[in-house]
Amino acid sequence: MAKKNVLIIGAGGVAQVVAHKVAQSAAEFGALHIANRTQSKADAIIQTLRDKGHRMPFASHALDAMDPAAVEALIRQLDAGIVINVGTAFINMTVLEGCIRAGAAYIDTAIHEDPARICETPPWYGNYEWKRRDDVAKAGITAILGAGFDPGVVNAYARLAEDEYFDKIDSIDIVDINAGSHGRWFATNFDPEINFREFTGTVYSWQGGEWRENRMFEVGREWDLPVVGKQKAYLSGHDEVHSLSARYPDADVRFWMGFGDHYINVFTVLQKLGLLSEQPVRTAEGLEVVPLKVVKAVLPDPASLAPDYTGKTCIGDLVKGSLDGKPGEVFIYNVADHKQAFEEVGSQGISYTAGVPPVAAAILVARGTWDVKKMANVEDLPARPFLELLGRMGLPTRVIDATGDHPI
Amino acid sequence: MAKKNVLIIGAGGVAQVVAHKVAQSAAEFGALHIANRTQSKADAIIQTLRDKGHRMPFASHALDAMDPAAVEALIRQLDAGIVINVGTAFINMTVLEGCIRAGAAYIDTAIHEDPARICETPPWYGNYEWKRRDDVAKAGITAILGAGFDPGVVNAYARLAEDEYFDKIDSIDIVDINAGSHGRWFATNFDPEINFREFTGTVYSWQGGEWRENRMFEVGREWDLPVVGKQKAYLSGHDEVHSLSARYPDADVRFWMGFGDHYINVFTVLQKLGLLSEQPVRTAEGLEVVPLKVVKAVLPDPASLAPDYTGKTCIGDLVKGSLDGKPGEVFIYNVADHKQAFEEVGSQGISYTAGVPPVAAAILVARGTWDVKKMANVEDLPARPFLELLGRMGLPTRVIDATGDHPI
Repeated sequence: MAKKNVLIIGAGGVAQVVAHKVAQSAAEFGALHIANRTQSKADAIIQTLRDKGHRMPFASHALDAMDPAAVEALIRQLDAGIVINVGTAFINMTVLEGCIRAGAAYIDTAIHEDPARICETPPWYGNYEWKRRDDVAKAGITAILGAGFDPGVVNAYARLAEDEYFDKIDSIDIVDINAGSHGRWFATNFDPEINFREFTGTVYSWQGGEWRENRMFEVGREWDLPVVGKQKAYLSGHDEVHSLSARYPDADVRFWMGFGDHYINVFTVLQKLGLLSEQPVRTAEGLEVVPLKVVKAVLPDPASLAPDYTGKTCIGDLVKGSLDGKPGEVFIYNVADHKQAFEEVGSQGISYTAGVPPVAAAILVARGTWDVKKMANVEDLPARPFLELLGRMGLPTRVIDATGDHPI
Repeated sequence: MAKKNVLIIGAGGVAQVVAHKVAQSAAEFGALHIANRTQSKADAIIQTLRDKGHRMPFASHALDAMDPAAVEALIRQLDAGIVINVGTAFINMTVLEGCIRAGAAYIDTAIHEDPARICETPPWYGNYEWKRRDDVAKAGITAILGAGFDPGVVNAYARLAEDEYFDKIDSIDIVDINAGSHGRWFATNFDPEINFREFTGTVYSWQGGEWRENRMFEVGREWDLPVVGKQKAYLSGHDEVHSLSARYPDADVRFWMGFGDHYINVFTVLQKLGLLSEQPVRTAEGLEVVPLKVVKAVLPDPASLAPDYTGKTCIGDLVKGSLDGKPGEVFIYNVADHKQAFEEVGSQGISYTAGVPPVAAAILVARGTWDVKKMANVEDLPARPFLELLGRMGLPTRVIDATGDHPI
């Protein structure tokens, strides 16, 4: 059987990691294509692949991914069997439509968003992606949603707890701590527009069998985690809460993100002034502008942070449950290193943790293990092959359970 | 002799005060005209005049004040003898040019600024206004620069100290404290664009016979002032330092502005992120935008603060010097009340203190006392008639000297 060609859509920091990881696993795939609105950014990534001595066939393409016909045409032209969508969160549905029409597998790492709307009704997947379940099944393609780190790997962590630890799950607390330092006065670790949009709306958590609503930074809690130590994290809205709550309706599902006081201060000033709004304002001169897009324009490009980034991230799931009526808890986690990520693929750790998992997913699709011919969130798929593959690809999973702290 | 018609250019919070004060002194003038880029704002001010029962002839006009020919034509059409320019700081030179051509007296309250440049070489007046001295004299018109409160009244305070207290002046420290509260999370008291531009550049002070350069918030000092009590103020760049240093080259001339920690935090975040820049940035979508203009668009309209504004302002000059070799000091000041200002003219105290003085200046021009037929800063003109008139118009001057705290 011919190896599948891979088409990466997007050319930011995560796309760079995806490209390098595909190239490192060249034997699993055919050719590697990168398509982006601005083609020169895709070319720049291909140059970094060449600099590392990778030799599989590469090509870049200009693509308006908001146009499903253009996506379909490019997939057909390239005979791409797997599309990895790591572009802006606004293009998921048009890229998925292109895949459905052209018969390619679809993998993304974050939920679809409408540029004009923030924080829609839960569960978020129900507003866009899940509406296409039947169409995906009918087309006989595989569509894997949210296969980054969080969402993605953390969903597999929950599934691992289900498969190997508990017959009843009571709570899943996902904790994301970046204890790294980029050395800038202020910067976001990924696209500021998406980053801030995560925090300006309602914080949804699934507790006691229903959606709870909080404001960002309303609920904080100190965690004591491996390697990164004691860190304050805040109840935050995040994609995976909206799919895990469907699989584990009887469990509490919460997402906690770590923030320093400085980040919170900057965020608070910007939000209180209205500068994080996705709704246009009109200047005195009559220009219509979306404030958030101006904030994005003045902030450092997240990709530019990589060379100076030091320190580590720790992301994991604290899962509580019981087996045969006996209660217990397990913390399943990964620790990643910013500097090591940069040395390997030229990206910082946040992009690294987000970019490696979709490639592991693509490999499992290529091998057939995950080629399920339907739409699936990561927790719907076998966790262990994914986590073991990730371990070999640079994102090892460790577990703290009754026997201590050890690799899975 | 026919009474002079007055043309106000601008229709913001200060213009509203100017209009009410002209109307209160209707006997001194002919008709009152208000011209603004957006005519409806001028109409709104005229409505507030009618609401207060004023009856002199009013009219509004649309005007592009960046076009000197348009300014000239309007002055001629209206037979305006006195132009009070309280529009944006970017229009001074074109309005002055219109006055020179049409033969009208010119009064403004703040220095000219080029939209694309921040904090030019000192003395600031030398970059624009003072270059037109000969043309103003040749045209035989009176042009009074910086006749607001600060600059303006504080310049007259310095002149009063010269005229009535000292034969040698060693230092002039101007202190501007707004101890009022507008009840908003954050707002600027006048046009945010002009407000922030004051603080993003170099802070110039005149000390030891030369220009000293500092950054904003680098030099702070606690003051203990009448009514408002102990307040922290910071060495700031301000117009009047640039004219007073020319008249008093042997004195140290400094300007101190009071700021709370909250204001400084918001300012610091916006500045550090680059959101106070007057240079355009390009969004990911390719739109060219000046960040500062977006910040202005999201902040409350300063005029909207008036109804809820409470508390007082204290602005004054601490002048040290000697008379016949005997050293001494005097603090000459005004205390204004936000609520009282709103009740009288529908504006908050900052607009009130800025808007009353140019009307006092206009009255003195109309009466001939200040109709000097040349360009003058306020300290070049007799101080006592101005300060006594201001006292009758709602801005009384008090003095703390060797004999205690008393009205002038």
